[in-house]
Amino acid sequence: MSKYLSHLSHVEIYATDIDESVRLYENKIGLKVVGRDGDRVFLRCWGDYYAYSVVLRPGAQSGMVRMAWRTNSDEDLDLVVERIEATDFRGKWLGPADGLGRSYEFTGPYGHTMQLFWEVELYKAEGEDASTYPDRPAKRITTGIAPRQLDHVTIASPDVEGFANWYHEVLGFRIMAFAKLPEPRITFFGVTTTNEKSHDLGILLDSSDVPGRIHHYAFWLDTPDQVTEAADVLGENGVPIEFGPGFHGIGEQNYLYFREASGLRIEVNSGGYRNYVPDWKPNTWELSQGPNDMFRNVTLPQSMLEAFPPAAKPTATEQGIVPGTEADLIAAAAVHANP
Amino acid sequence: MSKYLSHLSHVEIYATDIDESVRLYENKIGLKVVGRDGDRVFLRCWGDYYAYSVVLRPGAQSGMVRMAWRTNSDEDLDLVVERIEATDFRGKWLGPADGLGRSYEFTGPYGHTMQLFWEVELYKAEGEDASTYPDRPAKRITTGIAPRQLDHVTIASPDVEGFANWYHEVLGFRIMAFAKLPEPRITFFGVTTTNEKSHDLGILLDSSDVPGRIHHYAFWLDTPDQVTEAADVLGENGVPIEFGPGFHGIGEQNYLYFREASGLRIEVNSGGYRNYVPDWKPNTWELSQGPNDMFRNVTLPQSMLEAFPPAAKPTATEQGIVPGTEADLIAAAAVHANP
Amino acid sequence: MSKYLSHLSHVEIYATDIDESVRLYENKIGLKVVGRDGDRVFLRCWGDYYAYSVVLRPGAQSGMVRMAWRTNSDEDLDLVVERIEATDFRGKWLGPADGLGRSYEFTGPYGHTMQLFWEVELYKAEGEDASTYPDRPAKRITTGIAPRQLDHVTIASPDVEGFANWYHEVLGFRIMAFAKLPEPRITFFGVTTTNEKSHDLGILLDSSDVPGRIHHYAFWLDTPDQVTEAADVLGENGVPIEFGPGFHGIGEQNYLYFREASGLRIEVNSGGYRNYVPDWKPNTWELSQGPNDMFRNVTLPQSMLEAFPPAAKPTATEQGIVPGTEADLIAAAAVHANP
Amino acid sequence: MSKYLSHLSHVEIYATDIDESVRLYENKIGLKVVGRDGDRVFLRCWGDYYAYSVVLRPGAQSGMVRMAWRTNSDEDLDLVVERIEATDFRGKWLGPADGLGRSYEFTGPYGHTMQLFWEVELYKAEGEDASTYPDRPAKRITTGIAPRQLDHVTIASPDVEGFANWYHEVLGFRIMAFAKLPEPRITFFGVTTTNEKSHDLGILLDSSDVPGRIHHYAFWLDTPDQVTEAADVLGENGVPIEFGPGFHGIGEQNYLYFREASGLRIEVNSGGYRNYVPDWKPNTWELSQGPNDMFRNVTLPQSMLEAFPPAAKPTATEQGIVPGTEADLIAAAAVHANP
Repeated sequence: MSKYLSHLSHVEIYATDIDESVRLYENKIGLKVVGRDGDRVFLRCWGDYYAYSVVLRPGAQSGMVRMAWRTNSDEDLDLVVERIEATDFRGKWLGPADGLGRSYEFTGPYGHTMQLFWEVELYKAEGEDASTYPDRPAKRITTGIAPRQLDHVTIASPDVEGFANWYHEVLGFRIMAFAKLPEPRITFFGVTTTNEKSHDLGILLDSSDVPGRIHHYAFWLDTPDQVTEAADVLGENGVPIEFGPGFHGIGEQNYLYFREASGLRIEVNSGGYRNYVPDWKPNTWELSQGPNDMFRNVTLPQSMLEAFPPAAKPTATEQGIVPGTEADLIAAAAVHANP
Repeated sequence: MSKYLSHLSHVEIYATDIDESVRLYENKIGLKVVGRDGDRVFLRCWGDYYAYSVVLRPGAQSGMVRMAWRTNSDEDLDLVVERIEATDFRGKWLGPADGLGRSYEFTGPYGHTMQLFWEVELYKAEGEDASTYPDRPAKRITTGIAPRQLDHVTIASPDVEGFANWYHEVLGFRIMAFAKLPEPRITFFGVTTTNEKSHDLGILLDSSDVPGRIHHYAFWLDTPDQVTEAADVLGENGVPIEFGPGFHGIGEQNYLYFREASGLRIEVNSGGYRNYVPDWKPNTWELSQGPNDMFRNVTLPQSMLEAFPPAAKPTATEQGIVPGTEADLIAAAAVHANP
Repeated sequence: MSKYLSHLSHVEIYATDIDESVRLYENKIGLKVVGRDGDRVFLRCWGDYYAYSVVLRPGAQSGMVRMAWRTNSDEDLDLVVERIEATDFRGKWLGPADGLGRSYEFTGPYGHTMQLFWEVELYKAEGEDASTYPDRPAKRITTGIAPRQLDHVTIASPDVEGFANWYHEVLGFRIMAFAKLPEPRITFFGVTTTNEKSHDLGILLDSSDVPGRIHHYAFWLDTPDQVTEAADVLGENGVPIEFGPGFHGIGEQNYLYFREASGLRIEVNSGGYRNYVPDWKPNTWELSQGPNDMFRNVTLPQSMLEAFPPAAKPTATEQGIVPGTEADLIAAAAVHANP
Repeated sequence: MSKYLSHLSHVEIYATDIDESVRLYENKIGLKVVGRDGDRVFLRCWGDYYAYSVVLRPGAQSGMVRMAWRTNSDEDLDLVVERIEATDFRGKWLGPADGLGRSYEFTGPYGHTMQLFWEVELYKAEGEDASTYPDRPAKRITTGIAPRQLDHVTIASPDVEGFANWYHEVLGFRIMAFAKLPEPRITFFGVTTTNEKSHDLGILLDSSDVPGRIHHYAFWLDTPDQVTEAADVLGENGVPIEFGPGFHGIGEQNYLYFREASGLRIEVNSGGYRNYVPDWKPNTWELSQGPNDMFRNVTLPQSMLEAFPPAAKPTATEQGIVPGTEADLIAAAAVHANP
């Protein structure tokens, strides 16, 4: 299986109150505003290698506009577009914009939009923001929790295995693991990746009929201790911790979840395994093996079944199905039975 | 307020199957057997400064025999005994035994037995176990999770404030914090200390009528990361993690709870504040402020309300009262109303 | 041996350019200015329990004005003053000032000035700076490296053992360890403490004839990882790291040294052993055992032999004697031979 | 640039006393013996995904037999062999052996031997060694320092840039950074990688005329704290730490170096940046920027210029050129001038 994509480059999300969101990102999360384009605001993590990590766009509801992935070469961009168009899906080519060269935007089978591109310039901060280390794109930020890099996106889909398989076959993501309920045997969580971690693209089971929902997106911190410190700093500054700090069994990352100003969930994580096996076959985790909760003793808050845009019906969570929501999720999953 | 006690020296506990307990302590927890006396087995943490940290004694039920505290001087031993005997409580002097000089053993107002002593010899390992560092009593152990030192005891009492106040007034423990229920205003948790941490003697509300119960005792690891690694090592070797790793609000330690072979709960912890204020006055923590759960989003497992010896009625936990046990705890607390 | 002092409360130091110093402490170290009195500026670490941790006073040269210690009680203040005046040394009582009640200031046998006091108010931040945790005096600071607390002072003295013994006998400091040269057998480093760590008062051999010199003072961070992160943050913001991050053998703290605006050396540290043995007898560390450098493979920069105020002649360092400075140090030590 | 190789799979090295080496790996480093083939011994890190991580082969001198890399597919194996044979270099195909399918072994332009293969089976421990986590190939080892995975090899070459460029062009390694002396402008260190870290194949300048020397190979630990603990555990058990723990500027890993029983240098590391930029262009680090020593204040021990097999002439080190060895290194480098 060829690997067409090199990595997640940035996410674009809706902000219901963009000024409040910008204040949160700048002062408490610790990203830097690096540009504006009309109503859109571009923010960057100090350690990301291109110009920006997150784009905010005004919207009536929280949710993801699109996630952007860089290919491994210009040729790979054409190859992967061919592969997409060999399915029933069609996207469109966009001309150079936002500091990228030509890009291809498409919406996949479960309603999530991806932008694929090759051409982009490396970021190099100047003046005050320049790092003392040649390989750092900018100086370490010291405001807020200052995540080093964008890490991953976890979406919601009514068919976890269906989603994973499509992105594996068409775009070359490795599928690293699935997690199943004991009864009925529904797959409620899956992880796919372009890199050494368990996922830069995670999938939670969604019982709503709203396509293209996102459950959270995530930043990376250098060490597990920084994740703990981040929880302390956020909490002391009025940003409640929704869940964590804790440890996922799948992937072995430690995690922390909170909400940004529009209600969208953000994860901060660090640690985890490094797995380079190119022909890895996903194992199935039972709930009792702690797919979400490595030490198998934590109950997930009910709020963790919300995805974005909000919908009347819940998602599963990385930790299984919250009591009371089984019927909806089982019904949703039945539609997409994985034989 | 004078400080008569220097620190917790060791705990003696009952083992229902002493061979199985010894195997657990040696192979999975990582203490070293340093002696036997009849049926009793003496174990030590590599970093404790005297000969042993834990004594196992065969018993029909798990529970604490006694906890042993060293005074600050021989004179302080006499002074504190005078103070005890000036109350309604009487203990007895024991002659030199177990490597200690004369000691005084008494059972306090809520049924917990303490042994107080001054005379003891510093431990210095020889041969294979000798450390390369002059100030370490022995080489760092590399089996199991290898806690460095004994850390604290948390007992169960039907009157948290009553317990704290008696030990404060008579033995000079500083009271560092209380935690109260929102309604009724029952104090369900308290911490007292002889040192810079929030507690070497914690107190949980007990609704049983069994005196002298212990909720858990605890070991110390050098860093929070070692607590996470300990959870991994224990879980990989068949010792389930009852609760944690997580972070207490009171004291700011990170924690991990599991059970030893007799069912008794052991905590492993690290980190936390250092508070040297000699006239500290305890603050009262509301449940909403996260006294047990610093980041305010974790539900405690039901099993955490068990104390030892087992009893039909529950304790509160550091995190409050588990739903369904309110009536018992409120009734118990009502008997010892704190005005 | 009674323990009269509870802990180091604050240090007062000279600043050659007080505005530049304040900028460094506020923006890069992460203390908060809490008051001014004439030319003096009061700064606090977020986690210290009284009003301030460091006082800056304009001066022509860097150096220590005095270090302030709180006693364990008002009675202990009188007792310890009696003990001082029973030696050849005399200090003076100061009336209430700087938020303290009456205090006693004296200069000890090697020229270092201490202020001793009992009466002081606990600090409790309000508004923006208030913590969400009842036991924290203020919210965790997020600017700079934000040390939690003042930790220790290390002074320079021409007689390391003489200094340690005087403060042990008169003020009740425990002596935790000495380190000696192989040949001649000069004691070049010693540590004394009022708490569970190896030192809140360290001593380096000084070959100058300037009395009362200070080698560095230190702050505390919660975890070893934060010490590494501090080195990164300081370096990225124009504050070179003089030495470290590394690990001391004596005390097992990890360390980091840099200079404040006046040239005075600041250490940041975390970790280390906890030793509560009230009658501890100091061990002597050989250079080969890594008293300063736990892993025994690091060479100290030459600059580390500077103490303050500057003098023509060097100190030893925690790591022994820098080649080329032996003659001065041996000559100095010979005057105070320890039999 | 296509990426033909997925990752470093194992290293085979010479052991001058194989029994002593095995004891060290089993008891102090914490690998597991999983097989023997004649005189050769196969050892594995608990977290590596194939059957073994290190192969020991009896030899008169320490040194590397070969390093083995897995390709990204069977087709990539043929492609990369074509690329090698399109240069002046020829290797040979080996039949299935040591649990691998067909493999291709060749010796590159500076004398280092690589084995390339595709076919291999995933390892899955059974019984006692089985992990409780589906994705772990085996239970976490608790003996010694228990590195999770093999990490990288750093070789010595008389032409750092020449080596990097050949492996970049022929095998697809990304070149991540070079470090140059101030005067003359010799490149003394370079890093190349198949993954997200700065290097799984590092290069130090060698002034000897012995081809194919290795400077060290490295294991991975989960966290920086585990690297510190590893130094403690090794030192306490008679394995001196040659250098570290410290922090590299290039790559930002933290490091620790010690010697195995044959004298060969082993590194243990953790942390570091994650860089997925497929068209990364190497920056040149000046010595003053801390390529080896992130905080720019550590002197390297002289022993670090030894490579294996031993030779009369030194290597440079990641930290530059040790005083006194300039002439040899400059002379060696002059032969391979990089314009």
